Amino acid sequence: MITKPLILITNDDSIHAPGLRKLITSVEGLGRILVMAPNKPQSGQGHALTVEEPLRIYLQRSDDDYTEYACSGTPADCIKMATQQILERKPDLILSGVNHGANTSVNAIYSGTIAAVIEGCMMGIPAIGFSLNDNGWKADLSHIGDYIRQITENVIADGLPDYVCLNVNFPAKNAEPIRGIRVCHQGLGEWSEDFEKRIDPQGRDYYWIKGVYKYNDPRPDTDIIAIRENYVSIVPTMFDWTAKNMVEPFKKRFQNV
Amino acid sequence: MITKPLILITNDDSIHAPGLRKLITSVEGLGRILVMAPNKPQSGQGHALTVEEPLRIYLQRSDDDYTEYACSGTPADCIKMATQQILERKPDLILSGVNHGANTSVNAIYSGTIAAVIEGCMMGIPAIGFSLNDNGWKADLSHIGDYIRQITENVIADGLPDYVCLNVNFPAKNAEPIRGIRVCHQGLGEWSEDFEKRIDPQGRDYYWIKGVYKYNDPRPDTDIIAIRENYVSIVPTMFDWTAKNMVEPFKKRFQNV
Repeated sequence: MITKPLILITNDDSIHAPGLRKLITSVEGLGRILVMAPNKPQSGQGHALTVEEPLRIYLQRSDDDYTEYACSGTPADCIKMATQQILERKPDLILSGVNHGANTSVNAIYSGTIAAVIEGCMMGIPAIGFSLNDNGWKADLSHIGDYIRQITENVIADGLPDYVCLNVNFPAKNAEPIRGIRVCHQGLGEWSEDFEKRIDPQGRDYYWIKGVYKYNDPRPDTDIIAIRENYVSIVPTMFDWTAKNMVEPFKKRFQNV
Repeated sequence: MITKPLILITNDDSIHAPGLRKLITSVEGLGRILVMAPNKPQSGQGHALTVEEPLRIYLQRSDDDYTEYACSGTPADCIKMATQQILERKPDLILSGVNHGANTSVNAIYSGTIAAVIEGCMMGIPAIGFSLNDNGWKADLSHIGDYIRQITENVIADGLPDYVCLNVNFPAKNAEPIRGIRVCHQGLGEWSEDFEKRIDPQGRDYYWIKGVYKYNDPRPDTDIIAIRENYVSIVPTMFDWTAKNMVEPFKKRFQNV
């Protein structure tokens, strides 16, 4: 008897997000599924862990091949909690998303969706993050299900190299069909944060963060360009942040300080 | 007249941390200083931003060449707030730390200290994170001040390449003097989270995260090894997470899905 793949699913928009539901239905039947997703929005939480307070988990549903928990923590907490406390063995695959909003370019760095994927990758588990270039809670998700399933099946069949996970982004639904998949580089870009200052009823200042994204990457083969041209982007993503080309030059520079 | 360098300083252990004070005194006189540090501990916050609630800032002190604010947000928030709302021009340098606890190996990924540095790097500002391999609030910091100053002076004089920042770690104070600086690779390793389950007075389960770090990297030139051998480690660090060696192989694999 062949054991079914064990698939762990999370996201950062919370267990209530339509994107999470889309992801779950898109991979139905491919294996046993455990969902462990935040019980409140965790967008922009990056790779945060919950260390100052304890975590709680809440069983939502448990059928033969499907179990679902809500967790009080971040997406990275969810992966740790599921793998260390709930699952009897290492999952075969981690899926995260579908995020309501693109995680192209430097957005990946702020993303709880991608942090969950990196967390899996650090544990040696193949992991894929899915995001849609549409922030709306009611975003049209009808064009992405087949791609999610195909990419997931591909990774179940052939795995991923050590220390590499996938950051997959979909264009927002538009009049044209998706043109295919492009494997890309993470685009360069910058969030210019233009805080909005307000005054509370006690007369004290407070600030809302409100970013403007500036894309300033001349390369043709980035995730941003792929999405703009109506392709699905896949960026092979790693957690080794060493700027390897600078190790030797910096030896000369700093080891003689 | 030569303008003094403008140095922005933050950390993740909060504005009350001895490590932050050590960093400030170590670079005294090298430029005008703006401190914008979290008003509460933000360890393990990774690259989290505060988006669900507003931010507040609190002026602590303002002299000619020294201004200090506490901020209700994360280290990444602090960098954004300082550069976008407080400073009249882009700072010449961002310093973060000294963190109470090493940010070697995969710890960098969870670190608010390093997130602040990455944030600066994304803005095109030279940035250095300093961390000490000692978690204690009363850790002995007497052996690191000269290194902090030398590395900072080096970066003020010669800058850093685009898209590259520095992750600097110091060994804990011990009987031997530090042996020098080693430019290294970010070590591989894994946190195995062994949650501690407890029961609250209402009879409900809750969980404290408590990790055990496993180092499993055979390479000799990592930050972990440098610290063990009583060297200061410097890892040139970047925010392009693309696994570049997998772009071409994955084109063959996924673009024909």
